[in-house]
Amino acid sequence: MKQVRRALIVKNELVRQCMGEILGTFILLLFGCAAAAQVKTSRETKGQYLSANIAFSVGVMAAMYLCKGVSGAQLNPAVSFGLCVMGKHQWWKLPLYTVFQTLGSFLGAATVYALYYDAIMDYTQGVLTVTGPHSTAHIFSTYPSNYLSIWNGFVDQVIGTAVLLVCVLALGDRRNWATPPEMEPVMVGLVIWAIGLCMGSNCGYPLNPARDIGPRVFTYLAGWGSEVFSAGNGWFWVPLVAPFLGALVGTALYYVFVEMHHPPLEQPVNEEALSWQQDAKAGCA
Amino acid sequence: MKQVRRALIVKNELVRQCMGEILGTFILLLFGCAAAAQVKTSRETKGQYLSANIAFSVGVMAAMYLCKGVSGAQLNPAVSFGLCVMGKHQWWKLPLYTVFQTLGSFLGAATVYALYYDAIMDYTQGVLTVTGPHSTAHIFSTYPSNYLSIWNGFVDQVIGTAVLLVCVLALGDRRNWATPPEMEPVMVGLVIWAIGLCMGSNCGYPLNPARDIGPRVFTYLAGWGSEVFSAGNGWFWVPLVAPFLGALVGTALYYVFVEMHHPPLEQPVNEEALSWQQDAKAGCA
Amino acid sequence: MKQVRRALIVKNELVRQCMGEILGTFILLLFGCAAAAQVKTSRETKGQYLSANIAFSVGVMAAMYLCKGVSGAQLNPAVSFGLCVMGKHQWWKLPLYTVFQTLGSFLGAATVYALYYDAIMDYTQGVLTVTGPHSTAHIFSTYPSNYLSIWNGFVDQVIGTAVLLVCVLALGDRRNWATPPEMEPVMVGLVIWAIGLCMGSNCGYPLNPARDIGPRVFTYLAGWGSEVFSAGNGWFWVPLVAPFLGALVGTALYYVFVEMHHPPLEQPVNEEALSWQQDAKAGCA
Amino acid sequence: MKQVRRALIVKNELVRQCMGEILGTFILLLFGCAAAAQVKTSRETKGQYLSANIAFSVGVMAAMYLCKGVSGAQLNPAVSFGLCVMGKHQWWKLPLYTVFQTLGSFLGAATVYALYYDAIMDYTQGVLTVTGPHSTAHIFSTYPSNYLSIWNGFVDQVIGTAVLLVCVLALGDRRNWATPPEMEPVMVGLVIWAIGLCMGSNCGYPLNPARDIGPRVFTYLAGWGSEVFSAGNGWFWVPLVAPFLGALVGTALYYVFVEMHHPPLEQPVNEEALSWQQDAKAGCA
Repeated sequence: MKQVRRALIVKNELVRQCMGEILGTFILLLFGCAAAAQVKTSRETKGQYLSANIAFSVGVMAAMYLCKGVSGAQLNPAVSFGLCVMGKHQWWKLPLYTVFQTLGSFLGAATVYALYYDAIMDYTQGVLTVTGPHSTAHIFSTYPSNYLSIWNGFVDQVIGTAVLLVCVLALGDRRNWATPPEMEPVMVGLVIWAIGLCMGSNCGYPLNPARDIGPRVFTYLAGWGSEVFSAGNGWFWVPLVAPFLGALVGTALYYVFVEMHHPPLEQPVNEEALSWQQDAKAGCA
Repeated sequence: MKQVRRALIVKNELVRQCMGEILGTFILLLFGCAAAAQVKTSRETKGQYLSANIAFSVGVMAAMYLCKGVSGAQLNPAVSFGLCVMGKHQWWKLPLYTVFQTLGSFLGAATVYALYYDAIMDYTQGVLTVTGPHSTAHIFSTYPSNYLSIWNGFVDQVIGTAVLLVCVLALGDRRNWATPPEMEPVMVGLVIWAIGLCMGSNCGYPLNPARDIGPRVFTYLAGWGSEVFSAGNGWFWVPLVAPFLGALVGTALYYVFVEMHHPPLEQPVNEEALSWQQDAKAGCA
Repeated sequence: MKQVRRALIVKNELVRQCMGEILGTFILLLFGCAAAAQVKTSRETKGQYLSANIAFSVGVMAAMYLCKGVSGAQLNPAVSFGLCVMGKHQWWKLPLYTVFQTLGSFLGAATVYALYYDAIMDYTQGVLTVTGPHSTAHIFSTYPSNYLSIWNGFVDQVIGTAVLLVCVLALGDRRNWATPPEMEPVMVGLVIWAIGLCMGSNCGYPLNPARDIGPRVFTYLAGWGSEVFSAGNGWFWVPLVAPFLGALVGTALYYVFVEMHHPPLEQPVNEEALSWQQDAKAGCA
Repeated sequence: MKQVRRALIVKNELVRQCMGEILGTFILLLFGCAAAAQVKTSRETKGQYLSANIAFSVGVMAAMYLCKGVSGAQLNPAVSFGLCVMGKHQWWKLPLYTVFQTLGSFLGAATVYALYYDAIMDYTQGVLTVTGPHSTAHIFSTYPSNYLSIWNGFVDQVIGTAVLLVCVLALGDRRNWATPPEMEPVMVGLVIWAIGLCMGSNCGYPLNPARDIGPRVFTYLAGWGSEVFSAGNGWFWVPLVAPFLGALVGTALYYVFVEMHHPPLEQPVNEEALSWQQDAKAGCA
């Protein structure tokens, strides 16, 4: 009887985690893409680059509060990958997380399309384009600036994701100067904000394969056509690949510069403040 | 003797809560509408869309600190309704809360009119209009963009309020990754900020029947005339109705994706950090 | 011997408090006026209304951290007055605090003048004026907008200061939903930010007699001449008088709507989190 | 055996601290310079003065979280110097810290060059200049405004660094109203933000010899030539010297106005909240 129940709870836990990741990436993309839609369709009268940037980072914060206690709020296959490398996430969960993160992104993009249907139709006169003066595809996914080579774009994504990982690892490292755990989503949001302000002009800081491909597939299906894949010299594969390499680099950087130098533990770190979150953490260990 | 006193205290508690909700919505609208008035009457030299947006979200934060310990700082009939649905607020209090929230909004709008009387008269040359180049009615209440159909506006309000409820429920869910309770108003303010940045261009994100109808009635009485109800194809009913549906959707979303998957409690959640706020919480349970 | 020492400590405490208030208002004005100078002398290329607004509110935050543990960080005679009315500050200290707050403001303004000497000389071609296209007096003190009557300006200052007091009282009310005490300066800064965004266009939200008169006297002495007092139909007395009335109104509002309805205390409020700050608080009781 | 191990740990600690300071200043400059590059190369379409300002202050926050638990996150030779003066840092470590802080800055600048290589080439047409309409040297280091005399620039840097030190000392002073230690990086970031908003227009608020000279040397080597040293009447030495004097002034100000007036301690301050960070603090004591 007890064994049966335990089995159910384990399954239930995985369901919980997948549900959490869907809802989190859904809300993340809803905030992020809707802000981009507001900037674009209001012709920058009710928002500018900065406002989309802020909404995206608050979206990250909200998404983290939504599912951090359930699934760890990874929200990004590259982050999941980095945590796997460091032994903080289980490898076999990686594909599952990736699928549900991508699904959440897709649903978020679809909801933004519904939310801004009239506005997009008014702005585009009904012609959905990927390039040109009234293009709207970049509301949903990222495209490189004209001057950017694929090579420099790849470097951009590696550096950006590495910086993200370095910061996220530091913010949660109890043996360094970690944030209060309940405030961590705010600080991660701030870091994302700053990354957008300093690494956004090359190609829009995707940093996240799921965040980019989900909405891109949506735009492909919703009428923007195959140019969403071909634009920017076939740009779409860069945000799918480079963030994984960036996660590796970031993980290595933090390990080499900080974590490997931590003195050996003689007594368990005081995690009192975290006690009520143990269940949640157990789930994503 | 003791029974008499207890009876008085109970009554007093309801009075406290209503007084709290009035003061909270009063301050909320005072910040929000005054910021809109500053943007408008300074011809965007001392504020832009972003600044009104920020002031509104700090207003939410301030209003929550003002009355969260007294009345729960619902400040919004749709939020009260959502909490009733989840069994976290008493149904019989809903109409009372709604009345006092609306009254507070009305008084906030009236105070902004006094504060900006000279400025509005200077800007409008004394002619108070709802539409046209020098219209000022949207300082107080929301009106849809020209391109927006009633149907899309309704969807906008349902989605916006649902997102608000999902986030508010997560931020306070001690079994998920809740914020520190004393910081919760800041995070709710951030969420409102982002909603304004990403769902504000369709129709100004009312999300709150009381916040919209109180100032609208004020503008009707103060000289803007019946156009405040007829403008936008009779828009005024949408922010009165859609947020309730949105609150239902948001509540359901959070329940289905997160809350129903929480493992069964075996021991009471550690609410130590909340101990000094127990009285207050008892009041709004 | 012990009596002698106690007497010395009491004196020392008062000195501490006065030194604290000077340093606090000095830093407050240094941030606030320097930001205004940056906006003005860079011809809005390195700052706009919003940036001066942000710097002022961070200045409030910094000033509070600088002296809250020493003098209570009142930084404003109107706040000191409101606290006296509520029995939270001693009446006999009010004039002393006022003098030192004003002195700190004066010194802050003087430092900004030194900091931006070249910039102001470049911008004004050496002619320091209070009105006109290249006027610079409002870098230091407040002046009303052209449309504003003295009467509406007075109302503006009463409402603004009342809102400030209501919020400050709520943020520190342990029987309501107070902020974590160590975070209170951040929240007060946010409230000041929002007040600037929503009540700044009439007359620049002085809200503080010391903050306004200290720099005004400095500009009088430094070469702007007597017009600093006569401009705006003799505006200068309004920020000296109206904030005191506003503090009364705000104090009364919070008392009537919230504080008088608190249930009678049966046991002392849990102030555990404050324990290490007791000395400091004792000093400003 | 034990002695050997202790010796190794001490050495290891110094290595840790140097590694921490490199990584911290690297991330700080990466955020700060990349944001400036985004503003410049996007021709202010994807950022303005404010955005670079925000990114720099979040960079400070991130850098502090990265190494505060390891090296104290001084990130600035002038801060290290001020702490030495106050007996809170060891003099013999000062040159080492300075070297590694400068090295981190250099590497940060180099990474930004790689990140924005295509963008800079596109913007400058391949001609790297220090002055003129398409100059890009100030992406990396600071240069004075045209109107600024060396003397006023020197005063600017003294005042700016003094303000920084006063605020940093207050934020960490447990006998005043210190921030929660885990939140301190956020508050320091806010202070840096405000300093940029109010003391940035004269000469770009370097305030930090390492932050300025590292990237300047990089630009010299990378093709901007010797003008990086000669521009602005040989400006480059001011950010190398003035911040040290500013640190002295700031330290003295805080000591004279606040710290020397603290009552004598009769019992050790409650540092309970800091207990898990003791190792880290021991390291930088």
